[in-house]
Amino acid sequence: MGYFDTLMADRYEGLHFVSDGASGLRGLIGLHSTRLGPAIGGTRALATYASEEAAVQDVLRLSRGMSYKAALAGLPHGGGKSVIMLPRGPFDRERLFEAFGRAVHRLGGAYLPAEDSGTGPEDMAFIRRATPHVLGLAGKSGDPSPVTAFGVLRGIQAAARRVLGRSDLQGLRVTVMGVGHVGLPLCELLHQQGAKLWVSDVDAGRMKVAVDRFGATALSPEALVAQAADVYAPCALGGAINDTTLPLLKVKLVAGAANNQLAEARHGEALANRGITYCPDYAINAGGLINVAAEVGTYDREKAYARAALIHDTIDQVLARAKETGLRPEQVADKMVEEKLYG
Amino acid sequence: MGYFDTLMADRYEGLHFVSDGASGLRGLIGLHSTRLGPAIGGTRALATYASEEAAVQDVLRLSRGMSYKAALAGLPHGGGKSVIMLPRGPFDRERLFEAFGRAVHRLGGAYLPAEDSGTGPEDMAFIRRATPHVLGLAGKSGDPSPVTAFGVLRGIQAAARRVLGRSDLQGLRVTVMGVGHVGLPLCELLHQQGAKLWVSDVDAGRMKVAVDRFGATALSPEALVAQAADVYAPCALGGAINDTTLPLLKVKLVAGAANNQLAEARHGEALANRGITYCPDYAINAGGLINVAAEVGTYDREKAYARAALIHDTIDQVLARAKETGLRPEQVADKMVEEKLYG
Repeated sequence: MGYFDTLMADRYEGLHFVSDGASGLRGLIGLHSTRLGPAIGGTRALATYASEEAAVQDVLRLSRGMSYKAALAGLPHGGGKSVIMLPRGPFDRERLFEAFGRAVHRLGGAYLPAEDSGTGPEDMAFIRRATPHVLGLAGKSGDPSPVTAFGVLRGIQAAARRVLGRSDLQGLRVTVMGVGHVGLPLCELLHQQGAKLWVSDVDAGRMKVAVDRFGATALSPEALVAQAADVYAPCALGGAINDTTLPLLKVKLVAGAANNQLAEARHGEALANRGITYCPDYAINAGGLINVAAEVGTYDREKAYARAALIHDTIDQVLARAKETGLRPEQVADKMVEEKLYG
Repeated sequence: MGYFDTLMADRYEGLHFVSDGASGLRGLIGLHSTRLGPAIGGTRALATYASEEAAVQDVLRLSRGMSYKAALAGLPHGGGKSVIMLPRGPFDRERLFEAFGRAVHRLGGAYLPAEDSGTGPEDMAFIRRATPHVLGLAGKSGDPSPVTAFGVLRGIQAAARRVLGRSDLQGLRVTVMGVGHVGLPLCELLHQQGAKLWVSDVDAGRMKVAVDRFGATALSPEALVAQAADVYAPCALGGAINDTTLPLLKVKLVAGAANNQLAEARHGEALANRGITYCPDYAINAGGLINVAAEVGTYDREKAYARAALIHDTIDQVLARAKETGLRPEQVADKMVEEKLYG
């Protein structure tokens, strides 16, 4: 089975192997779609890929996810992703990322990298030496987490209105799994709106902040999942909705910042069968992408927030159409994207 | 063994899988080097690749060959090549090549396709709809064969002077294997210079033209290879210098238009051991590439010929350095390229 089988099956535009002997660069750029504009997506740098095939499958899957997220957020962008297989021995990081920058430049702006797992603003600065086609630079859009949190809040507001008939979040009960970069500012925003919070985190210090500042109740992860509430907000690792957690949930809505919240597609069906409404992860957590995309041209934080506020309307549309059609929200979201990309 | 192993071993810049579901496009673009300028190289379209791996190895090998040819010819270009794996069922050629054009366009000018096996000017015109980055269009540089033939003549002139001590080609005995697009105009040029010709070709009609117009003697392929002469000019398929032909040759020089004249690298050594001087194929047959490269900007046939005339100097340098260093001409040519690309 060759790479073209995967590429054709999920309508990729390209898979680019980029290399440079002098710096030891072995990089992969997955380009799912540039139909709506230049493809945006982070650059991962890891030394731990089991094989070239594993890295290829990772970069392809992730680039497709970016296409869907960008399209549903209404951004003039497609989806891409890149992976640098870090040399196992010693290497010159500056030369490596500069060589990657030359490879990005050869794509002529079709792909715009940004920071991701294993990379940071300094790596983006190395890339910038070779090409203007890079985002996530220091002093530009900055930390995307508050914008992501704001987008999730707007999504929760839309879902609370449509599913729970609430015009505000006063007294809304929300369980938040993970109070890190995004979970904590989300707690703050929810607290400002009068919501009642339960939180859990592997880091006791972060939980204490939520308890002290936002009146949250700290729970173990198991207790949090089983806590009766209106909304469950997964804001930690992927796969929060799985065979273990599903039977325990006592909520009406799942709406959080984490990526890949459904461990498997069938868990979306299981949520629906239990009468729980799922706000598709990539629809509600697009704020970070919206923020970094705002670096194209001149970055304006107000514009980024204004665009992230529209996540309210996206979630509202998804849930309305799910009700009309009988499809699940995550199916509706995919369908909306595919209409934009291929309709 | 992954593709990165090949890419790193021979210093490739990139291997690009490009695909398009709507048109069925499965294309590969090998980018060996853009160090000296945009990579030039033809687009092959075949339905017969045994596997994806076979197509990848083909496109990589060919793109590296283009790098070497362009660099040695002193062109401001790197080497690339592309392959389209034609759909096995019915397909819309126009849509297919237009989709390939979009993929080429996403490379932002780093790669410039041209016609090659299985493609023609009309396919380049389909590509042109999606991108300006294409060569080989109808009404531009046209048939490259006469320029290739002229370059080979210039190379033979340089080698005849340096190896045979001849200041002209009057009475030079040349055996020409293959009198097609390039071989026939080469015969014409050699005839004009007073050379005496022997020819062989699978097509009796073409041989007759060489006999009638240029006073050539027609021979069977076996007889041609064994004909005593000054120069053997392979102008047909690759692998002309092989275990069968080598012991038969009674010439001082091998200098022809065919690609990949040495069946294996060791045949270069065997030629040298027999006291036969080999004019490296990619040095002497660069006229076609020089001609299509002249399409960048405004095509000027006189300029193309002027540049192809410099093949004389390239061959002269290669042979001079071979004499100085004791290296074989094809080793010197590779070294000269590698100094340009990596020195």
